[in-house]
Amino acid sequence: MSGNSFGKLFVVTGFGESHGPALGAVVDGCPPGLPLTEADLQHDLDRRRPGQSRHTTQRREPDRVRILSGVFEGQTTGAPIGLLIENVDQRSKDYSEIMDRFRPGHADYTYHQKYGVRDYRGGGRSSARETAMRVAAGGIAKRYLRHRYGVEIRGWLSQLGPIPIEFRDPSAIDSNPFFAPDPARVPELEEYMDALRKSGDSVGARVDVEARGVPPGWGEPIFDRLDADIAHAMMSINAVKGVEIGDGFGVVAQRGTEHRDEMTPEGFLSNHSGGVLGGISSGQAVRVSIALKPTSSIRLPGRTVNTSGEAVEVVTRGRHDPCVGIRATPIAEAMLALVLMDHALRHRAQNADVDTGIPAYAEVPARGAMDPGES
Amino acid sequence: MSGNSFGKLFVVTGFGESHGPALGAVVDGCPPGLPLTEADLQHDLDRRRPGQSRHTTQRREPDRVRILSGVFEGQTTGAPIGLLIENVDQRSKDYSEIMDRFRPGHADYTYHQKYGVRDYRGGGRSSARETAMRVAAGGIAKRYLRHRYGVEIRGWLSQLGPIPIEFRDPSAIDSNPFFAPDPARVPELEEYMDALRKSGDSVGARVDVEARGVPPGWGEPIFDRLDADIAHAMMSINAVKGVEIGDGFGVVAQRGTEHRDEMTPEGFLSNHSGGVLGGISSGQAVRVSIALKPTSSIRLPGRTVNTSGEAVEVVTRGRHDPCVGIRATPIAEAMLALVLMDHALRHRAQNADVDTGIPAYAEVPARGAMDPGES
Amino acid sequence: MSGNSFGKLFVVTGFGESHGPALGAVVDGCPPGLPLTEADLQHDLDRRRPGQSRHTTQRREPDRVRILSGVFEGQTTGAPIGLLIENVDQRSKDYSEIMDRFRPGHADYTYHQKYGVRDYRGGGRSSARETAMRVAAGGIAKRYLRHRYGVEIRGWLSQLGPIPIEFRDPSAIDSNPFFAPDPARVPELEEYMDALRKSGDSVGARVDVEARGVPPGWGEPIFDRLDADIAHAMMSINAVKGVEIGDGFGVVAQRGTEHRDEMTPEGFLSNHSGGVLGGISSGQAVRVSIALKPTSSIRLPGRTVNTSGEAVEVVTRGRHDPCVGIRATPIAEAMLALVLMDHALRHRAQNADVDTGIPAYAEVPARGAMDPGES
Amino acid sequence: MSGNSFGKLFVVTGFGESHGPALGAVVDGCPPGLPLTEADLQHDLDRRRPGQSRHTTQRREPDRVRILSGVFEGQTTGAPIGLLIENVDQRSKDYSEIMDRFRPGHADYTYHQKYGVRDYRGGGRSSARETAMRVAAGGIAKRYLRHRYGVEIRGWLSQLGPIPIEFRDPSAIDSNPFFAPDPARVPELEEYMDALRKSGDSVGARVDVEARGVPPGWGEPIFDRLDADIAHAMMSINAVKGVEIGDGFGVVAQRGTEHRDEMTPEGFLSNHSGGVLGGISSGQAVRVSIALKPTSSIRLPGRTVNTSGEAVEVVTRGRHDPCVGIRATPIAEAMLALVLMDHALRHRAQNADVDTGIPAYAEVPARGAMDPGES
Repeated sequence: MSGNSFGKLFVVTGFGESHGPALGAVVDGCPPGLPLTEADLQHDLDRRRPGQSRHTTQRREPDRVRILSGVFEGQTTGAPIGLLIENVDQRSKDYSEIMDRFRPGHADYTYHQKYGVRDYRGGGRSSARETAMRVAAGGIAKRYLRHRYGVEIRGWLSQLGPIPIEFRDPSAIDSNPFFAPDPARVPELEEYMDALRKSGDSVGARVDVEARGVPPGWGEPIFDRLDADIAHAMMSINAVKGVEIGDGFGVVAQRGTEHRDEMTPEGFLSNHSGGVLGGISSGQAVRVSIALKPTSSIRLPGRTVNTSGEAVEVVTRGRHDPCVGIRATPIAEAMLALVLMDHALRHRAQNADVDTGIPAYAEVPARGAMDPGES
Repeated sequence: MSGNSFGKLFVVTGFGESHGPALGAVVDGCPPGLPLTEADLQHDLDRRRPGQSRHTTQRREPDRVRILSGVFEGQTTGAPIGLLIENVDQRSKDYSEIMDRFRPGHADYTYHQKYGVRDYRGGGRSSARETAMRVAAGGIAKRYLRHRYGVEIRGWLSQLGPIPIEFRDPSAIDSNPFFAPDPARVPELEEYMDALRKSGDSVGARVDVEARGVPPGWGEPIFDRLDADIAHAMMSINAVKGVEIGDGFGVVAQRGTEHRDEMTPEGFLSNHSGGVLGGISSGQAVRVSIALKPTSSIRLPGRTVNTSGEAVEVVTRGRHDPCVGIRATPIAEAMLALVLMDHALRHRAQNADVDTGIPAYAEVPARGAMDPGES
Repeated sequence: MSGNSFGKLFVVTGFGESHGPALGAVVDGCPPGLPLTEADLQHDLDRRRPGQSRHTTQRREPDRVRILSGVFEGQTTGAPIGLLIENVDQRSKDYSEIMDRFRPGHADYTYHQKYGVRDYRGGGRSSARETAMRVAAGGIAKRYLRHRYGVEIRGWLSQLGPIPIEFRDPSAIDSNPFFAPDPARVPELEEYMDALRKSGDSVGARVDVEARGVPPGWGEPIFDRLDADIAHAMMSINAVKGVEIGDGFGVVAQRGTEHRDEMTPEGFLSNHSGGVLGGISSGQAVRVSIALKPTSSIRLPGRTVNTSGEAVEVVTRGRHDPCVGIRATPIAEAMLALVLMDHALRHRAQNADVDTGIPAYAEVPARGAMDPGES
Repeated sequence: MSGNSFGKLFVVTGFGESHGPALGAVVDGCPPGLPLTEADLQHDLDRRRPGQSRHTTQRREPDRVRILSGVFEGQTTGAPIGLLIENVDQRSKDYSEIMDRFRPGHADYTYHQKYGVRDYRGGGRSSARETAMRVAAGGIAKRYLRHRYGVEIRGWLSQLGPIPIEFRDPSAIDSNPFFAPDPARVPELEEYMDALRKSGDSVGARVDVEARGVPPGWGEPIFDRLDADIAHAMMSINAVKGVEIGDGFGVVAQRGTEHRDEMTPEGFLSNHSGGVLGGISSGQAVRVSIALKPTSSIRLPGRTVNTSGEAVEVVTRGRHDPCVGIRATPIAEAMLALVLMDHALRHRAQNADVDTGIPAYAEVPARGAMDPGES
C-alpha cells in the first residue's frame, strides 16, 4: 500500500536503498514446479547492471542475486521467493553536500515534503538502483511465461535523444551497449554519447518492448485492463514520462477505418491496437513504447533552494548515467513480464474452465520473431 | 480483483452493462462530513452524457444519478456511497446481427475468448457507457479535493483528429460542445465533424487534464507513484492508447539542463515534470495528456470472422460517437480526481504527523488559473 | 479498504443502511457460465429474512433481490453482479429518541467517535440488516461451489442461551424456526423464547456450520490460512464474539495423541482439526462454531451517556430479535461459502497445473451427509 | 495474495523456510520519524526464541535480526523496512525419513496436495519458525503504538493443558518460562511439563492478550471490523483453533442485561465486549483469548499414509515444543499489535479531520495497568 509492492497475484515487494547494505524483494504467488536457479536471474541482471560500458554510470556493482527461500531442489515450491542483492560499491561521501539542498528534477524535495526525513545518500529509496530487484523478479515471471505459455518478451532502444533507431536486426540488440536493433547506428550513438558525457549534460530516450505469444483473454475489463496495468508498470520506472500502447499518440490523427485491425480466418491484418482490445489481450503481439527523461543528475550547476528555503546552486557529483534510457531496456522487459504474469494468474483464477472452441488469431502475414516494424 | 474496482483507500467499484437495467457504483472510503447531494454529481454527468450535440451519439439517456446510501442529512457519513443510474434508452435489437461476429477494433473477440459467453447488446460491460459511473464517483472526489485541499481539476480537448487546439481561453471550454479552449477554432471543428459524420468514419483525439493546488507529498515511491497511478487511471478509459505526464514524449529529445525544473525561493521556474518528481507531487500543477483512438463503431464495412471462424463483413449500426474523445474530457477529469483523492488519503495514513516546516512551492511567475501554456 | 468489501478474488462489496432506500452489493470475480436467476438467491434470503416467526423481529421486509448486471440469458458473464434489495418497512420515527444518546452494547458510541456523524435510524450501516446482502452474495458462491466442486454447506443452531441442541436429525433443520437439528427440542426452545420475549431481555446463541466435499489444497499458508479467513468472516458477523475451528477451545486440554487425526489409505480416522491443516483444507469436512452475543436492543432500561456527556437512561424501542443467533444460520453459511469460493479461485490461480497423483482422503467411516456428531 | 502478507496499510510480507538460509520480512507503510534500532526488536525476539528453558524446543537459534533498509540515522524514513534473521542451527537430516510420509496433524499432506512439491525439512514454510518474523515486525508496530498513542499490549498464558492460570500478578509474567501471571502456579506447571516431556506427548494451551489505551474509533464497519481482523490475525498463528473477543463463548448463555456494558460519565461499568462495539474500538481494553492445539510433532508413533498411498507409521524426531502455547505469548502480542497499527493508519486515512468533542471513555473503576480479571 505504500507503493513498494506490484501485482495482485504475482506480487513483488521490494526494499532497500542505494547506499544501504542491500536491496531485496519478495516474490509471492509464483506457481510451484518452475525450475529456477540464481543463474537464471543473473543474465538479465547483468544486462541492466552499471559499469558495462563507458556510456553508463561507473559504479561497480556485481549485482549478484541470492535466492533465500521458495526454491527447493531446483524448483519453486509455491512459497514466497526471497531475493537479496548486497550493495558493495557505495561512496556515500559523494552525497554529503546535497544533504540539505534539493537537486532540481530529483525526488529530494518531494521526499522531504512527504516524509520530513530523507536518506540523501545516492537518492536513498528513490534511486534507480531499486530497479535491479525489478529485473530479478521480472526474470522469474519471464521464465514462467516462456515455460508455461511460450511467451517471449524483448525490448530495444528506439530513440536516443534526437537519434531515431530503426528496427532492422533484432539479433544485434544484445551485441551493443545500447540495446539498439540497428548495428549500423551504433557508431553514431557512441559518438553522440561521448560528446554528451563531455558536455556534462544528459539526454532522454525512447524504449520499445514487445511480448509475442500472449494468448487471447489476459487482462481485466474496466479498471485493470491489461494496457492500464502496463501503463502503470511502465510509468513506475524511474524517469518515464510517457507510455504508448500500439500506435499510441499516433491514433489522434487516425481514422477508424485505418486504426481498426481487421480479422480474417488467417489472423489479424494489422496491429495498430498493440495487442489489446477492450483491455484484454487479442493474441497479437503486445507492443509498448516509453519515453525516458534526461536524468537530472548532471555536472552542470542548477538553481535550487536548500532546507532553509534559501536560493543556492547545486551540482550533482556522484556517478550517474548520462542517459538512463540506455539501461532501461531490461527494466521495461521485466515490468511487462510482471504485468503479463499477474494477468495470466488472474485470468485463470476466474476463467480456468472456459473453453471457447475458437482459435487464437495472431497477425498475418507471419512475421519474423522480432520484426514489429511491418505492422 | 476482476478489474471493476479502482483505488486503494477511496475505492470505486462499478457494475452494469450498456443495455442492462442500470449502471451502478459503490464509493467506499469517503471521509465523513462532506456536504453532498445528487445535484452535486449531476453537473459533470451532464457534461459527459450523450446527445448533447449533433457531434455525439444520439442515444438519449438522462443519466440521473441516485444516491442510495452513505449520505445522511446532506452529508457523507463515512459509510459506502451507493450510486445508481437507470438505463432508459436501450435499443437492443440494433445489435442482434453482431451477436455472432466480432467487430474489428472492438472487445467482442477478446471478451469472447476470455469468458466464453458475451452480452453483445451495445458492447455489454465493455461499452463506454460505464464511464458515467466514473464521472459520478469522480464528482465526489473532485468535491472533497476542492473543499478540503483547494485542488481544482480541469480538462480540455487539445487536438481533434488533425486539428490542434491551443489553450487560449479556459472560460470557453464549457461553452462549446468540444471542450475546446479556443473559441475561434469551434467553427472549424464543427465543420470537420459534420463531414466526418457524413463519411461514416471516425477520428481520434487528444485531451489534456490539469490539477492545480495539489500539495507536495502525494504519491508513493516505486510502484504506486502518483504518475504511475495516473497512467493506470487514464489508460483504463475506453479508447485511450497513450498517456503523458508533463512534457511526455517530448522528453526523449530533451537535455537534462532543459528538462529539470529549477527552483527558487519564489517557486519552480518551469513545469516540464508535470508536477511529479520521483512519483510524488511537487506542488506544481499536475499535467496529463491522453490519446484516444478513433472508435471502431463505424458504418463502413470491415472484414472480420464470426464465431464459427468464417470470414464475414460487419457494419456497426447502433448509435455511436464518431469521436469518442469529444466526451472524454469529464471522464479524464474524473479519473485524475480519483487518483488524487486516493493518494490524499494514502498520504495522510502514513504521514499524518509530518511537519517539515518547508513551504510548498508552486510555479512562478504566478499564472492564471487556467493558463498552462506558459510553462 | 473501508471495510465494506470481502474477498480477494471473489469480492463482495456492500452498501446500504437499515432505513435508507435500499441495500446493495456488487459481486466481482464470479466465473462465467454459472446458471443464475434471482429465484436461486431468494431461498436463502427467505431463510434469513425477518418476521418468519414470532421469535424474530416483526419488521416486515420481503427482501426481494434484483440482479442488475453480470447475468445474460440466464448465466453469469464474468462481469460484476449488481444486487439490490429495496427497504420497504422502515419506521424511522421509532429511533428519534436515541438520536443523541448511545445505546449500551451498540455501535452508537463507536460510530460517533469514528465518524463524528451518524445515521441513527435503525443503527444505520451498523444494523444487522446488511447481512441480507451477505446471504445474497453467499448464495452465488454456494451455487458455484456445488455446481463446480460438489461442496455442500449447512449450518444449524447448536445452543440457545442455556439450552444445548444436539445434532440428531439434519432433515429437521429447515422445518423449525430455530434451525435446530433436534425436533424434540423445539417445544422447549419455543417456550424459552416466549418467556424471554415477555421479559424484555435477550439471550446469546451458538451456531455450527460445516462444508463437506471441500477438496484438499484450498487456503494459503501463513496469514491467509483457510481457517484464518473463516475466523475473519465469522467474526465480521454482527454479534459474534467467538470462533472455533474443529475442536476449538476443546484443544486446550487435549493431548497430541488425541488431537492429531491419523490417516489410513481409507481416509482420516477422526476430524479434530475441523478440516484444516497448516491453514489448508485437508479434504475432511470443514467445521466451524460461532458464539453470538445477546442483542443489546432490549426494552429494559440501561444506563448510558448522551452526546453532551450527561448520564441518561435509554430503552430500545423499534423492532428487534430477542436472540439474533436464531437468524444467524444462513448468514454463517453464506460467509463460509464466500471464504471457500475465494480460496477456490486463489488456489487455482497459483496451482492450476498441479497434479499430485495422490487421492483426496476424507473421513472414514463414511458418514451421512449431515452427521458431524460422530467425529 | 498467496498468504504471505498481512495488513492493508502497515503491511508485513514474510518469507523463509525452517531450514533455508534465512527468514525475512518487509514492513511497508511505517510512518517516518520513529526511533528504531535492531536492539528495539530483539527484546521480543528473545522472549519468543527457542531454547530459553527445558520446556521448549532445544533448537539453538540466536534469532538476531538485521534491519536492511528503511531506517536512516536511527529513525524510520517511511521506506520499507527489510528485516533478516539467518538460520544457524538447522539439522535437516532429522527430517529425511518424513520426506515421503505425511505426519498426522501436520501440514505435510495439505502442502503436498496444494503444491505437488514440498520442502519437508523441518516443515519448510509451514514451520512455526516463521513466527519469528511476526514478532520482529510486530515489535515495530508495538513501538509506534506506544510512542504515538500510548497503547500498551501484554499477553500471558491463561491455561496450560488442564491447568487454569489466574491473573494474579502481571509483574510475574516475564519472570517465568511460561508467561504465567500467577507465580504460585509455576512449580505445578514445571512439574506438569516435565512429566509431559517424558511421556513423549504434547498438550494444548490458552493465551490471553490485551491492549490498553486504544483510542475509540479504530476498526472498520462490516467486514473489516477490528475484532474480525484480530480473529484473522490470531487464527493465522500456527496451532490456533479458537479465538474469543471479550467474553467469547461465554456470551452464549448470557442475557442482554448482563452483557451490555453500561456507560456513565465516568466510563464503562464493565467490559464484556472486549473493547469492540460494532467492530470499532470503544476505548475499553481490547481483550482476546486464543486456543492452541497440542503440537502433532511428538515421539509417539501414529498411523498415516505415504506418498504412494500406503499405510505406514510415523514418529516425529527433530526438536519440538511439547506445548507450542508456551512460546505463543509474544506472537499473539505481535499479531494484536499489527492489527491495531494497521487500523490506526486506516482510521486516520479516512477520518483524520474528525473531531467529535466527546471524551474517550474507558472502564471504571480505574484498574491497575495489568488487572483485567476484575471486569
